[in-house]
Order: sequence, then structure tokens, then C-alpha cells
Amino acid sequence: MNFSSDNVTGVAPEIIAALAAANAGAMASYGADAVTERLARRFSEVFEREVAVFPVATGTAANALALATLTPPWGIVYGHRDAHFQVDECGAPEFYTGGAKLRMLDGAHGKIAAADLEAAIMGRGVVHHAQPASVSLTQSSEAGTVYQAAEIEAIAEVCRRHKLALHVDGSRFANAVASLNRSPADLTWRAGVDALSFGATKNGAMAAEAVVFFDPAKAADFAYRRKRGGHLFSKMRFLSAQLEAYLAGDLWLRNAGHANRMAARLAEGLAAVPGARLQHPVEANELFVEMPDPVIRGLYADGFQFYRWDNEESAVIRLVTAFDTEPSAVEAFLASARRHAGVSTGARRS
Amino acid sequence: MNFSSDNVTGVAPEIIAALAAANAGAMASYGADAVTERLARRFSEVFEREVAVFPVATGTAANALALATLTPPWGIVYGHRDAHFQVDECGAPEFYTGGAKLRMLDGAHGKIAAADLEAAIMGRGVVHHAQPASVSLTQSSEAGTVYQAAEIEAIAEVCRRHKLALHVDGSRFANAVASLNRSPADLTWRAGVDALSFGATKNGAMAAEAVVFFDPAKAADFAYRRKRGGHLFSKMRFLSAQLEAYLAGDLWLRNAGHANRMAARLAEGLAAVPGARLQHPVEANELFVEMPDPVIRGLYADGFQFYRWDNEESAVIRLVTAFDTEPSAVEAFLASARRHAGVSTGARRS
Amino acid sequence: MNFSSDNVTGVAPEIIAALAAANAGAMASYGADAVTERLARRFSEVFEREVAVFPVATGTAANALALATLTPPWGIVYGHRDAHFQVDECGAPEFYTGGAKLRMLDGAHGKIAAADLEAAIMGRGVVHHAQPASVSLTQSSEAGTVYQAAEIEAIAEVCRRHKLALHVDGSRFANAVASLNRSPADLTWRAGVDALSFGATKNGAMAAEAVVFFDPAKAADFAYRRKRGGHLFSKMRFLSAQLEAYLAGDLWLRNAGHANRMAARLAEGLAAVPGARLQHPVEANELFVEMPDPVIRGLYADGFQFYRWDNEESAVIRLVTAFDTEPSAVEAFLASARRHAGVSTGARRS
Amino acid sequence: MNFSSDNVTGVAPEIIAALAAANAGAMASYGADAVTERLARRFSEVFEREVAVFPVATGTAANALALATLTPPWGIVYGHRDAHFQVDECGAPEFYTGGAKLRMLDGAHGKIAAADLEAAIMGRGVVHHAQPASVSLTQSSEAGTVYQAAEIEAIAEVCRRHKLALHVDGSRFANAVASLNRSPADLTWRAGVDALSFGATKNGAMAAEAVVFFDPAKAADFAYRRKRGGHLFSKMRFLSAQLEAYLAGDLWLRNAGHANRMAARLAEGLAAVPGARLQHPVEANELFVEMPDPVIRGLYADGFQFYRWDNEESAVIRLVTAFDTEPSAVEAFLASARRHAGVSTGARRS
Repeated sequence: MNFSSDNVTGVAPEIIAALAAANAGAMASYGADAVTERLARRFSEVFEREVAVFPVATGTAANALALATLTPPWGIVYGHRDAHFQVDECGAPEFYTGGAKLRMLDGAHGKIAAADLEAAIMGRGVVHHAQPASVSLTQSSEAGTVYQAAEIEAIAEVCRRHKLALHVDGSRFANAVASLNRSPADLTWRAGVDALSFGATKNGAMAAEAVVFFDPAKAADFAYRRKRGGHLFSKMRFLSAQLEAYLAGDLWLRNAGHANRMAARLAEGLAAVPGARLQHPVEANELFVEMPDPVIRGLYADGFQFYRWDNEESAVIRLVTAFDTEPSAVEAFLASARRHAGVSTGARRS
Repeated sequence: MNFSSDNVTGVAPEIIAALAAANAGAMASYGADAVTERLARRFSEVFEREVAVFPVATGTAANALALATLTPPWGIVYGHRDAHFQVDECGAPEFYTGGAKLRMLDGAHGKIAAADLEAAIMGRGVVHHAQPASVSLTQSSEAGTVYQAAEIEAIAEVCRRHKLALHVDGSRFANAVASLNRSPADLTWRAGVDALSFGATKNGAMAAEAVVFFDPAKAADFAYRRKRGGHLFSKMRFLSAQLEAYLAGDLWLRNAGHANRMAARLAEGLAAVPGARLQHPVEANELFVEMPDPVIRGLYADGFQFYRWDNEESAVIRLVTAFDTEPSAVEAFLASARRHAGVSTGARRS
Repeated sequence: MNFSSDNVTGVAPEIIAALAAANAGAMASYGADAVTERLARRFSEVFEREVAVFPVATGTAANALALATLTPPWGIVYGHRDAHFQVDECGAPEFYTGGAKLRMLDGAHGKIAAADLEAAIMGRGVVHHAQPASVSLTQSSEAGTVYQAAEIEAIAEVCRRHKLALHVDGSRFANAVASLNRSPADLTWRAGVDALSFGATKNGAMAAEAVVFFDPAKAADFAYRRKRGGHLFSKMRFLSAQLEAYLAGDLWLRNAGHANRMAARLAEGLAAVPGARLQHPVEANELFVEMPDPVIRGLYADGFQFYRWDNEESAVIRLVTAFDTEPSAVEAFLASARRHAGVSTGARRS
Repeated sequence: MNFSSDNVTGVAPEIIAALAAANAGAMASYGADAVTERLARRFSEVFEREVAVFPVATGTAANALALATLTPPWGIVYGHRDAHFQVDECGAPEFYTGGAKLRMLDGAHGKIAAADLEAAIMGRGVVHHAQPASVSLTQSSEAGTVYQAAEIEAIAEVCRRHKLALHVDGSRFANAVASLNRSPADLTWRAGVDALSFGATKNGAMAAEAVVFFDPAKAADFAYRRKRGGHLFSKMRFLSAQLEAYLAGDLWLRNAGHANRMAARLAEGLAAVPGARLQHPVEANELFVEMPDPVIRGLYADGFQFYRWDNEESAVIRLVTAFDTEPSAVEAFLASARRHAGVSTGARRS
């Protein structure tokens, strides 16, 4: 009944079990343990090349540390106007980079376009201006859409031409991979991505994300930044164990696939609700829906939880599904929406 | 058999159980959940006054965020030369404060003395000099000793006179409280402490610390600093649940008391090992022992794990006990030490 | 013949003379000299109340230090999209504030409107968002226009309601005062301004600006920030002497008045040049003029210096007049423009 | 009569003249002027190799910007405990580096020894520790002594072995060069120095220093740091003109040579004052002298200005000579000291 966010969820049972399993006896601290070592190898398998992996506990830490590694203090990070790192991290990228500038771009359905990026880049080599340094895409996006591999490649081509690093905020990366049916490699380094914030928390972990660098040489400083930011865990095994379980048997993709299907079902069902209008294509696990106010109030009255977006009077609501969303909750939501929208239901009539 | 650190330990069963229990259903994120609310009340009870409490996941985050709240970028933090925040946090306090200066003091047995602090304070109001701003004590200390309440009070008196804030790095605060048999209040705000990094990770939690401000008004900025540092957990309930279980039934004091007793037993036993010399009084759960090299090598050969302190050729070793140290491991260690030191054992004689 | 900027000018003779005069004998360093003391009193007279004054050498230093004093690291500074502190200071405000966010607003003719500011303020008290903290206006603006006292008052009213500090970047404040014929007090604190970057460099000084706080209590930290930024001059008397001469006998207003008149004459003359179109009202010492390309090329060929705005193919040029702009240079420019625009000048000759 | 510092002096007449001369007509701003271009060539001649030169206005800016270029935020700068950048810059190095750590060494007569540096370096590659990054020597030192070329070479050898950059704070570099009779090249890059804060302000300039990088490739970021710090002057010609005049005809060495001779004369004369004891060899333009209190008071009473070092009750005074110290002032000082020390001056009486 709670569609307010995928971070209101608990932990997937496989991951809780992995935490308990990792709790056996003494282990070397700060990442010199066997779990963390296995995890590094596992990530290299998943991404089909040797990568550098750094577990951290929050998405904000992952993003800010990754961007700081790719952006000097006088650099510019380009991204979409609605990006989490601009809107919802209280200036973490500015803090970790030492004061870089975020230059935000408009873009339909939560995505930036290569041409708009190209047009925004200026000032290279001119000392008065902050310097173009990096780009951050959100995959899946803040609008519940996904970047196609070709879209990423086009952006990466702009990056190459202007010597910008390319970062992906993948707090919902699993949802994008599950949606696109492309390999993690295709959606990252093969498309030109340099670093990825690989999210797990929203999709079944307790608090675990991984920063992945596809060229380990570019990650040289990351470990110092992570420690200095207070994000190196002494009992690292418990971060690594979450991520290991998350990758094991493709749990991450199964969880995300379920969430995506629940979102698709909501979208499908809302088509039958008069006055409901999707704001964006539904390609992952978020929906933004314009709804008649009585329907919104009715849904609240029926106990459903979700946010009006992005203010308290808005006629647009956001619905987020998750790895543990019950199909019955989806159906109940749709039934409530239909009822408040005045749709008579044949079944009852009969 | 592993005495290398209290952070090689796993998680206390009570806390693993609490994590599982907290995993029931959806909960509001970012600390607006019931567990976090209960935790705040519990902390106020433990400290016998209303306090502001901020859970974070690492001791470095707790210290750096607390110090940044108490120290302007041009401020000076005074502390002991061996303090963790100076030696082992890769510059986290400098990072979080925006470049404050750490002025380190000598002091016997890991503790600073009020008189030495007084003598070190200078430059107030002179724009050329970084400005005295705060003091950080480590309780229990890096040398395995504890500050008596009267020692803290004397330091707090210097702080009051010079308008310095007083912080306690309590990553092993439980060990100090268990050792001193004084109330948490007596050892903090009643003695003049403004903020405490209240540690749990080393003493049975998975990854959980709390920053406690005894005057909530002084904590106004902390929430922004925490978020911006990437230390606000979306699934906060799992940090809070660890801390709640840690405080429940005085688990924190029972765990610490056990670790302390194991350390005391080691100290007692080492008195019978020729050539073994304690470097500091053993008042908490750490011992620093000068040992003959053959004994050290013998212990390593017998499979015991610990560090030579503070370099690889050192004749001084550090032994750390923990909440889960087996008495039998202690006895085995002592037996090995005695044997390698050439002490004949009555049992064999008979 | 050089209209490219008012910073290509040299130093007004009165100020060169003051530097020589200040060079007599030893004087206390770092601002404890008699010149600096006189200057402070003089500023209080000019602004008709007791103010705190801090001389620095560059406009970027003035702006960044002022904004850092008014904005916490997690704060937001609002300003016009074209503001110097956003576009031309290579991230100095981000650096000095410790990573604050600049939120830029559109606005006709280089000015922000109170209503647009009001609409942009959000997120107060929500820890995920950077926090509204300050507003910076540029007076005269980057478009060569000026804020009327009533416009400032309206913005200040929004600031008061939202508890934002109000800063004015007055690198061309003299031009605004000369243009508006209002007192410095009316255009600053009486209208609700908290701090002013009072420029002198562009208007006849060698390198001297003053940061003025209208409530000295709010300036408590400024001196530490200035020192720590490397902006406290040991031989301060030479900064103060420039500013003293600048204020003496209203040199600042005379210089600015001359520059403004030269700009007005250019604007008037350009009205007679076919195809020349002013982009903004000409209210200070800058003009932005759309010109036919052959005219622009002709002017360059005749040796006039100025920039196409804001790229090298632009049909808009910027013309800046200064305290030392010769009326004959203005007439020569206009004659050249008319000639290249095909205006026959027969009539006047006859 | 004023021996309190070399920064209480005015400007050398040659430099005042150069400022006036640079004031002719319009010039390109921000360093694209002819004076600055000539200056760069001149520096390369003085140092006998191509160097990168960046004029700034204060010694604190020069040091902090240079150190920030050589030291990452998690780096350690090693230097002498009394170094200006540690004691007298209000944390500017911490600010500009983004929070690096200053590790201060003891050392006789204001100088660090290679062996002590070697012993202090530790923690390389260990993520818990701030990382050894750079060394800063003060030449001439805070104790009025100078590093011999061989001493610099020994320190540079340690730097090479540990991959540390070597910076020289040369706010009184001219005094050292004049004292040592070695070429600027011998005392810098030939000895292994990477960057130099080349001071002029204390030795006759108004406000001008230059940061010199001996490998221009290492200076790539400096220009952005300078701009972002607010230290790029729009009317750069006036900084460059000071430095050009300072180097012309070896004014810098003549000025410094004079100051050094005045210091030597003071030292020589003080040998005849009972109870006066030099604390350090007098090798440049500063003397630290223990004096009987009645003598100190007598000198003050006679109108001489100088500081008790380093507190107001100290029996040690500091005397600083400068480019404009009058020989008669030196003799008067000595006569006063002798008189207050009770030395009868037979010659005159007879």
C-alpha cells in the first residue's frame, strides 16, 4: 500500500540471510576480508572486464565521491535539471569536489540529449570560467525513464570530444538493466561510461552501493576520498555481503524486474482511469501521473501512500514500485483509483 | 585468537536479531520512522537530559561531523597526539571543517592534561592565527586508559575559560563507562562535554555510531552537514535498530564490561611473563605491552593475531579484547606467552 | 579607442598621487595604519551610518568573501544568470563558501525581479535540499542597467520574509549611484542591503575594492576569511590610500558620471546608425548593441577595440566607457560606425 | 627607528616610478599585457631556464596557492614548526589545499634537517593516513638564517626518494640569495626545488610576489586556482611592473644586500652590549636577541620599535632590517642599547 518510494522498503530476505552468514568469527577490517575480495571478482564478471569497486553505504556518498574523483574543484558537472545529485543531496557534490559547479540542462522525460550537452559546453581553457569536466546521467532517470545504449553512446561521444568524464548515477541501475535487456557492460563502459554509482539499497539491500570505475587507473584517489569522507567501513564485510548476495543468482535483476512489472501494471491499469495522464513513458519503477484531485484524495483516504509531485498542491503524483511490491497492492490501488474516478465495475454489478 | 582490533569482530546476536526485527514492512525513510523516534527518547533517558542524537555508520563520520559543527574553518581543534582523528582518519576533520587546524598535544598514557591544554591556547582574536575553537578527548583513550570525571572537568574548565567546545571521541565510550562505574551523564555533560561520538561498532554493532549533542541548540547545522556528507541513511531504521538493541538491557555495558575483564585478565596474566612490560595502565580493552622478540614471534607462530605497535619491528605489541573475546583465548594467549618466555608450568612438572 | 572593458584603463591621476603620498616612512602593517583608520571613518560618512569596511584588491575576492560570510556551505545564493560571480569568477563563490550552490534566475536587462526570486525559493528546512541563504544583485548590472531603489526594496522584502541576506556586487556601484542620483545609503542599507562589494578598480583605482557590511555584527568572521584567503595586505595603507583618494572630493562619482555620459553619448549617436539596435536601456557605462556585421568589421578595421558578445560570431557588441574615455574617441567611434553603415555625412559639412 | 618588521616599510622609489610608468593608456587586462609578457621572459633569465611565473599580491596567497598545486586534499605538507604558513596565515594552506595536513618539524635555527624529514615521513599508501605530499622550506628562515645549497639538496634528495614536491617560501628569498652569493638557479631548481614563492613586498615592492614553477608542466592548474582564489588582477600590469622594476638592475639583490648589511652591523654592535645574546646566526635581515629587560625598556623609551618574541613578556626581541633602514638608525639603536646596558663610552667622554 506504500508507493511513496523504493526506500521505504526493508531488506530482501536473501540479503538479510547474507548478513547473518557473514557474521561468523573474526575477519580483517576495512575491506581486507574474503567477502570483499570475492565481491571485487564478481563485479568484474558482471561487467565483463576488470573494474575497480568501492562499496559505500549511501547513494549520495557514491555519487559525490565518484564526481569528486572525476571533477576538479574548478570543474563543471553537467546533468539533468532534476537529477538527484543536484536536487536532493544538499550540496554533497559541491562539498566533495571542493566547490565544483553543477550546470543543469533541461531535457524531456528526465534525460539530457547529446545536442543540448554539446551546446552547453563552453569556456574551455579560459581562466575566468569554471571548466567543463564531467557529465552525470541518471539511469534509470528521475522521471522513471531509461537511457537507451545509443543515447548514452551519443553523450559519450560529446564527452570524448570535449574530454569530459562520464558518470552514471545508477541508484536504480538494476531497473534500467532489467528494462533494457542489455548487458551491464553495454550500458556502461562499452557505451563510453567511466564510472557508475551502482545502487542496491533501493532494490533490496539494507544500505549498500558500489562505485565502479571501468578504468581502475582513474580510481587511484578514490580510496583516500572515501576514507576521508568517513565512508570506509571497518566491518566492511557487511557491506560486501549485501552486494554479493545482491548479485548472486541475479537477485538484483529479479528484484528490479519485479518492480518494473508492477510499475507497468500500474501504468496499464491507470489507462482505464478517466483523467489519469502519465507524464512520462513508464520504463522502470516510477510513474508520474496527473490525476483528478478527488481521485488523489480518495486514494489517500483509502490508505495509499505516495507523494504529490513536486509540491503539496500538485495534481501530479509519483508512484514508486519496489522489489517487494505486492501485486495485490497494485490491484487495490487501481481499484481505488477507478472507484474514485467514478468508473463502475462490471464485476460488482453482476 | 584474534587480538588485533575490536573491529575484526562480527555483530552481537542481539543486534543481528534487532536488524531482522526491524525488517518488517514499509517504514518512512531518512529517520522519520518509529525506531529512530524511540531511539531519540532512549538516548535522552540514558543521558538523563534531552539530547539531540544523530545516528551515522562510522566513527570517522561521527568525529568529523561533530568537530565540523563545533569548529569554524579557521578554527583549531586540540587533542592528543595519538588521537584517531589526527592519525587514522586521512584528514577527515580537515575535510569536514573546511580546513581547520589540528593542534596536537603530548600527554602521558594517551591523555591530555588541562594544564598542557591551557598552555597551548594562544592567538585568540589575532587574525593571523587560526583560532582556538574546540577540544577533542578520546574516551577510552588510544592508550587503553580512561579519563576520570575530574580530569574531564578540569579540561572543561579550560574550555569554558577560553570559549572552546568540548567533544569526546567515544568510539570506545562503553568501555570507559564500564571501567569507571560512573553514569554516562557524569562523564559527559555534567563534566562539561558538549558533544559525544557515541560508538557502538567496535562493541557489537555492525556499523552504527551516534553523535550526541547535549545542548540540542548547538546541533542546528548537524543535519545539513550529515546529509551533505552522504551520511544520512535512507533506511535509517537499520542504523537506529542497531543502536536501540545496543542500549537495550545495557547490552553496551555488558559487552564492554566483558571486553574490559578480558583485558584485565591479560594484564594480570602478563605479569607472570618475564620481560613483558605494560606501557600504560590497563583501564579499558586495550593493552600495549613490551615483549621480548622471541615471545612475540612465538605467539605469532602459535597463530595469535595482533599488531606490533607502531611499526613492524616494534618490541611493543597491542592487544585488543572485545565483547566476544573467549576467556579460553585469553588463557591460551597467556600460556603461549609464558611458554615462549621460558616459564615452566607446574602442570608439566607434576 | 578602446571600448573593450573598463578594466583596460590605467589609474586616475589623483589615485597615483595618493599612492605616492602614502609612501612616506614606516607604517604599521595589516591595516593598523592611520590611512586605513581614516578610511573607515570616511566610509561611515559616505553611507551615513557606522559600517564595517574591509579593503581587498579584486572584485572576485570582494564578492566571494562577502558571499561566504553570508552563506553557509549548504546554502544557496540567488542571482541573475549573467552575474559575474556565476559566469566569470571560476567558481570563487563555491570555493570561499565551502561549496554553496548558486541558483541563477532569468530576468530582463540583467536584473532579477522580486517575484521571480520569490518563486525560486524552496526547500527551507528540508535536509535533502541546499538551503536558501542569500541573494546577490549586480549594481550596475551586467547589462549596463541599474536597479531602482524600489526594485531593491522589493527584493529585500522577499529576503526579509525568507531570512535571506542581501548582497550587492557593486564593482560598478559608482556608475549606478551617479546614474540614479540617489544617496549610497538609499541604494543600500535603507533599501535592505546587508553587504556591498564597493568597486573602485574599474573606475580609476589600481586594484582596490571594499567590502562594506552595514551591520558590523554580521562581519565578525570576515577578517579571518580575508586573511585565510590571502587577501589581507601587509602594506594595507596602499589599498586604503587608493580608496581614500577615490572617495575624496567625490572622485568616484565624478569618474563614474563621466563614464556614464560617454555611454549616453554613444547610445544617442548610435540611434543615427542604421541597423544598430540597443539590447538594453543604457543606464550606466555599458552598451550592448546589435550591429550589421559590415559595420562591426569596419569598426575593427578602423582600430576600435571592443568585444562581440558573447561569442566570436555574435552580431551584438559590447561597448564599455570609463573614467578616462575621451569624448573625441566616442565621436570617432560614431563617425566610423555611421560611415560603415553607409550614412553620408554631407549634410553636416555643408 | 622602526625595526618591527620589513613590512612596515614603504615602496622603493624605483618601483613607485615603475607604477607611474605603467600607467600609460589602455592595456589588455588579466595578464595579457606587454609588461607581464616581458616579466615572464625576465624571470626565465634570472632563473636560467624556462619557468612558469604567476604574479600575486600577497605572500600568503603565493604560499597557499603553490602548496595547493603540489598537495592533494589528503596530503601532508612538511615544514618547520615556526613556518609562516603554519603560524601566521590563519589556515590559508588548509583552505587552499582543501584540507591538507601540515606536519611540523623541530629544527635548530628555524631550519629543518633532511634526517628529521626522513624520519617523519610515514604512512605512504595506507588509506587511514594523510599522504606525504610536499615539503616547504622558508628561505631565508623565520629565524633569520639561510639554507645552504647543500642543505636544500639533502632535503630534495629525501623528497625525490619519497616522491614529495619541494616548495620554498621565499618571502625573503632575496635576502638569502644576497647572503649566500649563489645564483637563484643554484638555490632552487638545481638543488631540486619545484616551486618558489618569490617575495618582493617585504623588500621594496608595494604588494607583489611571484609564484615560480621550475617545471611549467606542473603548473597546469595554478591559473584556475589563482582566479578562483580572487588573486588574478584585472590590471595585472601593475603587479608585473612592480616585479619588473624589482628585478631590473638587480634592485632586489641590492635592496636585500643593504638590509642584510644593516642586520650584520646590528649583530656586530650587539656583541658589545653586555647581556645581549643572539639566539641564531645572523645570516639575513632578522635578529633574535635576548636582552636584559632594562635594556629592552630603555630602547622602547627611546622610541625604537620592535617586538618582544614571541610574547609580551619575552626577554628575546626580534629586530628586522629592510631595504630602507638607515645606517644612522642602526647606530642610534646600538648606542641606546649600550647606554641602557651601562656601557660607558670612553671615547666620547675623553
